[in-house]
Amino acid sequence: MSPIYLDNNATTRTDPAVVAAMSPFFTEHFGNASSTHSFGSEVSGAVKRARQSLQALLGAAFDHELIFTSGGTESNSSAILSGLAAQPGCDEIITSTVEHPAILSLVGHIAKSNGVKVHYIAVDGRGALDVEAYRAALGPRTAMVSFMWANNETGVLFPVAELAEMAHEHGALFHTDAVQAAGKIKIDLKAANIDMLSLSGHKLHGPKGIGALYVRKGVKFHPLLRGGQQERGRRGGTENAPGIVGLGKAAELASEDLEGAVSKLRSLRDRLEQGLLASIDHCRISGGEADRLPNTCNIAFEHIDGEAILANLNREGVAASSGSACTSGSTEPSHVLRAMGVPASALHGVVRFSLSRETTVEEVDRVLGLLPAIIQKLRAMSPLWRDRQPNAELTASNTA
Amino acid sequence: MSPIYLDNNATTRTDPAVVAAMSPFFTEHFGNASSTHSFGSEVSGAVKRARQSLQALLGAAFDHELIFTSGGTESNSSAILSGLAAQPGCDEIITSTVEHPAILSLVGHIAKSNGVKVHYIAVDGRGALDVEAYRAALGPRTAMVSFMWANNETGVLFPVAELAEMAHEHGALFHTDAVQAAGKIKIDLKAANIDMLSLSGHKLHGPKGIGALYVRKGVKFHPLLRGGQQERGRRGGTENAPGIVGLGKAAELASEDLEGAVSKLRSLRDRLEQGLLASIDHCRISGGEADRLPNTCNIAFEHIDGEAILANLNREGVAASSGSACTSGSTEPSHVLRAMGVPASALHGVVRFSLSRETTVEEVDRVLGLLPAIIQKLRAMSPLWRDRQPNAELTASNTA
Repeated sequence: MSPIYLDNNATTRTDPAVVAAMSPFFTEHFGNASSTHSFGSEVSGAVKRARQSLQALLGAAFDHELIFTSGGTESNSSAILSGLAAQPGCDEIITSTVEHPAILSLVGHIAKSNGVKVHYIAVDGRGALDVEAYRAALGPRTAMVSFMWANNETGVLFPVAELAEMAHEHGALFHTDAVQAAGKIKIDLKAANIDMLSLSGHKLHGPKGIGALYVRKGVKFHPLLRGGQQERGRRGGTENAPGIVGLGKAAELASEDLEGAVSKLRSLRDRLEQGLLASIDHCRISGGEADRLPNTCNIAFEHIDGEAILANLNREGVAASSGSACTSGSTEPSHVLRAMGVPASALHGVVRFSLSRETTVEEVDRVLGLLPAIIQKLRAMSPLWRDRQPNAELTASNTA
Repeated sequence: MSPIYLDNNATTRTDPAVVAAMSPFFTEHFGNASSTHSFGSEVSGAVKRARQSLQALLGAAFDHELIFTSGGTESNSSAILSGLAAQPGCDEIITSTVEHPAILSLVGHIAKSNGVKVHYIAVDGRGALDVEAYRAALGPRTAMVSFMWANNETGVLFPVAELAEMAHEHGALFHTDAVQAAGKIKIDLKAANIDMLSLSGHKLHGPKGIGALYVRKGVKFHPLLRGGQQERGRRGGTENAPGIVGLGKAAELASEDLEGAVSKLRSLRDRLEQGLLASIDHCRISGGEADRLPNTCNIAFEHIDGEAILANLNREGVAASSGSACTSGSTEPSHVLRAMGVPASALHGVVRFSLSRETTVEEVDRVLGLLPAIIQKLRAMSPLWRDRQPNAELTASNTA
């Protein structure tokens, strides 16, 4: 039986067409894109075309609004630090309680070391942002707002276009961590007045080690990595040409039939969720009532340990996760689910299944065939299950 | 005629064996190294082995002293900013006038924005550091010293082990930008008490977009990119597994017969230099009297424009450069050569030939066959050559 990979929010398989596109840039067209000789110019042309493919995926008005980085974390850090530097006199940041660690650990550090005040906006039980709290936090001292487009654990989407308008009414810059959204849902930066947007190649079947930061024309940018004049002086360091070309190809592939991919993914994901809810009791979908990514299923099996479920799935060749890969192996419950107020009985038995365009209906059905027995076996051994309080139980019918 | 690539200080061809080593990590072993399932663990094992290969290349005592980054610029920036943060109360940096732009533009920015005082230590006409000026600049307020191991334009080596000892006598941290040295000369971090060292994959036949920062055990490190717990919490972001594996393989290849490679490179480089000095008058080697990298030849043809030489070489299929790729196309004379006091007549006709283990004697001889006619043709058209002052001339005999 070939293994089944359902952890695509952690990373995706690089598309073979992406590898093929990158391949000549290692040993054949290997020049430095900044070199003026022909080894360089053949590479800089390819970098330019990749930038245009990414521009098309995002609906950006200009290709020079895109800066290639080493990935989502660098893009996020660059955006936040640049936004702060660009707004002297403003010393407040607004973000949410459910952001990725790349944002939360950075703003936590800035708060401690630079005395910047960070407002963490809460979410409700569905994962939706408390927009009124956000409105109240905005003010003349707000330098920067950063809300993720799609949550990496639950897939829940924030209405970033509206949230950006609110920031602008107060003169604040708006950044979105779109690492999970890019390539999975339609993004149109001509329609959404977002100042900065982060994305990562390996989340959309591109290579690891490459990402991009969109900076809207006219938005002042302060580089994080200084050096040569690469990326119009906004990101020093020799261009990672194979990575850039790979990201360009991944963007092109994701653009091809995005609507078709979304509806195929949603139908597979829904088949998985409905099948699990029908065959296993005392489980709940987190974020299931919200507008969310079509590929993500975050399901909690009550009174049971998530790591044990994952280990059993892994033994059967099925890869899934309990949340962010950054926190894999940690026994701490997810900060996202805690922020959503998920009851304690469901905080530990969490499995995130994240599908990709490579996922098949046969794979979903194999998981549907495997999981009930795994859950039953684990519950039979679980003291939490034995000692559960009936009145704290959640059933499939009341949560999905 | 196949093209001749003599710009290996800008970037090198990725070794086909490196590409072969990376290749399974795109589509086959594509997991996130931080994931706990088998897709992740097979990748984390490979990352560990790559770290050990790099450890061996550098003679580092522990593999966990190495942090993978996106390249030389990120490593350099991380080192400098970490060193400053680790030494509260110290607000001075010492570096040299001939560092790479990745260092100079960063410290220039810090000086402006944070009020840190930067001491720029001069070099003499041979490119050697003014050690007395360095000694005088060291003091209780020195947080950080950063001197490059090998100069990217001239190949001149700084005696970093001694320079590090001097820094330590004043309680300062010592960092070296070894981007050009790593893989080209012997580095032994057990013998040299260096606190931090930066390197880049693509300068040693590894891939672009990957580098490393060595941080000696016990040296406090403050991350530049915060996020997940990757790299023991010292560098957030999904591990660039293919890049890391590629860098590991490149380190392994460079370690294999370093002495042999050095002596082969030196003999080819000397053949090139002696041939040029013998066949073309009014030219000089910059840094030729100093201890320097075996692969680098920085030669100035007086009273003539370097970009014109490069364009003519390029037309014949020969790739070389006037200096750093980061400043390619710029008509400003090199800051390195100016710092060395190279006379004005020789500042514009500069060509840097940088060889690699792939360079052949036939290639060197083809360049030796081409250049005299190119120089003669350009000088015939050059008003600078026509109007030259005979007493300002330098001849081969007095400079090499």
